[in-house]
Amino acid sequence: MSGTVPRIASLDHLAPGDSFDLGTLSLPREEVLAFATRFDPQPFHLDDAAAAESIFRTLVASGLHTLSAVFGRLITSGLIADVSLGGNQMDVKWPAPLRPDEEVAVRVEVLDLRPSASRASLGIARLRYVATRTADGVIVLDATGTHFLKR
Amino acid sequence: MSGTVPRIASLDHLAPGDSFDLGTLSLPREEVLAFATRFDPQPFHLDDAAAAESIFRTLVASGLHTLSAVFGRLITSGLIADVSLGGNQMDVKWPAPLRPDEEVAVRVEVLDLRPSASRASLGIARLRYVATRTADGVIVLDATGTHFLKR
Repeated sequence: MSGTVPRIASLDHLAPGDSFDLGTLSLPREEVLAFATRFDPQPFHLDDAAAAESIFRTLVASGLHTLSAVFGRLITSGLIADVSLGGNQMDVKWPAPLRPDEEVAVRVEVLDLRPSASRASLGIARLRYVATRTADGVIVLDATGTHFLKR
Repeated sequence: MSGTVPRIASLDHLAPGDSFDLGTLSLPREEVLAFATRFDPQPFHLDDAAAAESIFRTLVASGLHTLSAVFGRLITSGLIADVSLGGNQMDVKWPAPLRPDEEVAVRVEVLDLRPSASRASLGIARLRYVATRTADGVIVLDATGTHFLKR
């Protein structure tokens, strides 16, 4: 995890275009299998032989697992830990699959910010989380979440 | 789980407007805590006292947990089990939170279908998954996924 991520005390400490490197992560094979068993039991997430016959050619992580791990990194980075009040929307793209033990670099970018119409003490931030395979620069996750943050 | 969910053999067995009841589910408190600990360690997902001070007032499941469980129900329902080749996009809304042990009814609806431009053997289906609290009819998840399905 990057040691340079600030811990903001208010939504107003963010500005559109701000971008933070959240370090690298990978999904161990055992966790890929466990997540898929519980939440996405499709053959190409669970079985090497079945995956070899799939469009992925090898076993790949559930996209929901990739998403959850990248979102988790945002939370554990501390960036919004003191101001996060929840969220209510996410638009997710998985341009390429992520395989077990492949390393990705995680980055978060501030897309836009606006005050809440109903509560002066909070605002709405749209944050984009991108995970890029470090081996080849291919983006495996490109998601935008709507976050309620304290002001 | 509903016993009336068909197991389709081709994308062409679906039509826009088709809707399938996938039964009910709930997230046990222990699983809510375990998922949040790993993927979304925010106080309102982990600690009753902190949640009491949050906008949720009580402990709530991570939205990613709700999403993953509902998606898992789609997979385990068997509807697309024989034709699912993966997916690459999802738009998710969480209009209300889901609390541990609250029951939701899960429904999937076919929004639209189109052939693949590059591969005659597959098509692209947009499926909408909706989870509704059975106690009060409030929607807690409204997501649309883009699925590649065999034809």
